[in-house]
Amino acid sequence: MIRVAVDALGGDRAPEEVVAGAADAASGEIQPILFGPAGLDTQGLELVVTTQAIGMDEKPAEAVKAKPDSSLVAACRAVGEDAADAVVSAGNTGAMLAACFLELRRLPGVARPAIAVVIPSERPSVLIDSGANADARPEHLVQFAYMGSVFAEEVLGTPSPEVRLLSIGEEPEKGNQLTLEAHDLLAAAEGLNFKGNTESRDLLRGAADVVVCDGFTGNVVLKLMEGTIKTVLDALREGITASRRGRVGGLLIRPAARGMRSRLDPDTYGGAYLLGLRGLAVIAHGNSSRLAIANAIRLAARGVEHDVVGTLAQRLPERVLASARSESPRQAR
Amino acid sequence: MIRVAVDALGGDRAPEEVVAGAADAASGEIQPILFGPAGLDTQGLELVVTTQAIGMDEKPAEAVKAKPDSSLVAACRAVGEDAADAVVSAGNTGAMLAACFLELRRLPGVARPAIAVVIPSERPSVLIDSGANADARPEHLVQFAYMGSVFAEEVLGTPSPEVRLLSIGEEPEKGNQLTLEAHDLLAAAEGLNFKGNTESRDLLRGAADVVVCDGFTGNVVLKLMEGTIKTVLDALREGITASRRGRVGGLLIRPAARGMRSRLDPDTYGGAYLLGLRGLAVIAHGNSSRLAIANAIRLAARGVEHDVVGTLAQRLPERVLASARSESPRQAR
Repeated sequence: MIRVAVDALGGDRAPEEVVAGAADAASGEIQPILFGPAGLDTQGLELVVTTQAIGMDEKPAEAVKAKPDSSLVAACRAVGEDAADAVVSAGNTGAMLAACFLELRRLPGVARPAIAVVIPSERPSVLIDSGANADARPEHLVQFAYMGSVFAEEVLGTPSPEVRLLSIGEEPEKGNQLTLEAHDLLAAAEGLNFKGNTESRDLLRGAADVVVCDGFTGNVVLKLMEGTIKTVLDALREGITASRRGRVGGLLIRPAARGMRSRLDPDTYGGAYLLGLRGLAVIAHGNSSRLAIANAIRLAARGVEHDVVGTLAQRLPERVLASARSESPRQAR
Repeated sequence: MIRVAVDALGGDRAPEEVVAGAADAASGEIQPILFGPAGLDTQGLELVVTTQAIGMDEKPAEAVKAKPDSSLVAACRAVGEDAADAVVSAGNTGAMLAACFLELRRLPGVARPAIAVVIPSERPSVLIDSGANADARPEHLVQFAYMGSVFAEEVLGTPSPEVRLLSIGEEPEKGNQLTLEAHDLLAAAEGLNFKGNTESRDLLRGAADVVVCDGFTGNVVLKLMEGTIKTVLDALREGITASRRGRVGGLLIRPAARGMRSRLDPDTYGGAYLLGLRGLAVIAHGNSSRLAIANAIRLAARGVEHDVVGTLAQRLPERVLASARSESPRQAR
């Protein structure tokens, strides 16, 4: 059984949708364990009682420090103490990062854990970092590239994953200071299948197996992609339902439209891995539905099954050291 | 008559589509003037013969310096020398920026000219900077905000335009070093209707009248939006045409789908203004079609009609000075 600690109070629709999603994900292989207040309707799932809650708008570091018995922090601690195999929360992302750093700690050699999201393109692409590090240095991007590669290879089953750096032109000399320096480091890094820059235009078509960027850019990209997909499909629906002819057509294309909406729906992939820690953590969307929570828990279980953490621990040190050797002078700052 | 200098050799589909687009845009009010090689089939338009060409992949600054009689540089110079009222090129963007800086020069007080694009949201939003400055400092973002505001007010007719800073959370304390510092400066800036941060999720719905960001982020955003819209519509078409039922439905929804595709098509808005210069310049997409070129020329003419440059010159200095007074210590670097 894979034990997944679930923050029952995390997210805009907690606890109802979180508990429902956890119940949906429970199976012969997956055992969700809820962390939340006494008296919670757990739908028969195991409950670890916690006495505090971290709000979506609380300041992350302070909240984590002040509330060690919050559902979020306690769920992370369970993984650190081996009472669970993975943790899932749709709560305050900053607090989740802070709690994971504190309770799970970094893998040796990892400077900055990063968020990896599988973009719903036809060729699955790992976008790393999707938001853990708002500011990053060039050598961090090299570590992201290694972590993303191991993840793509081990979890997605992509042999020798193609890595590209997200920039504003395919030519090496296009970009900002960060990507220009990172490009040189990536090109020189050993054991990476680095293929140069990619532009954001190609992301949803599947630009590469691993797309590397700083966390600010990655977060902007992820949210923009989600928002744009939703706005386009909503506008199309509105345009169609404005005429009788359109409404009939809409009925006929419904299966195709539904299939695509479901493929592109963030709820379908559910969550993002936080890579570079000694334990497995999945961060779900703040407004996660029951379906999103269930999928985030399944995602966490898949990570345990593929031993993402163990594989990273085993394969990273050597690569990270190789990367450290080629670090730019900026590292000294 | 509004005279628009057109770089006949600029863009992937030059010169054919460029000349055709210019011919389409010619009217009782608009007089396109082509810049290109002798013997060009001009479809009856005026031609200023140039002897050099700048390729899409040439290094911008060097190319502009080495090729003063290229179609791109000569077209820019025509505006600087008042032989034309505006310039349009779909050529090498970097070279266009360099040529504009050289031939048109900056407005007094403007540190960094910026690219303003009108996003095709239902509420038109000006995205500034969309790619002129890959690296920017906080005080530059304040200038972008002023330029974007004047543009929205004068050209789009939006009274007291709402300005938002693109970041990774709506709360002022979310962002990277650049946006955190820029947020404080914007909040303190006089004469700006600054409403705080916006997330990329809301951009296509129309997050604000003016959305401010550095040029790297803006360029990533613009290309991602275009690519995502295209990929979604293509995938839907593919899904629909895979079944007979879907094909019939597709025929019925075609008018609605076409309307949306056309609204969201980058060719419809055609180009981007480069603001902060003493002359008017419009940068069109590298792969501009005939339609895109025609619309870019019309966009340039509209800018002349609304006297964008004169209005900026008149309204900026005071505001820019106000912004300079509140500049962060980083400016000293």
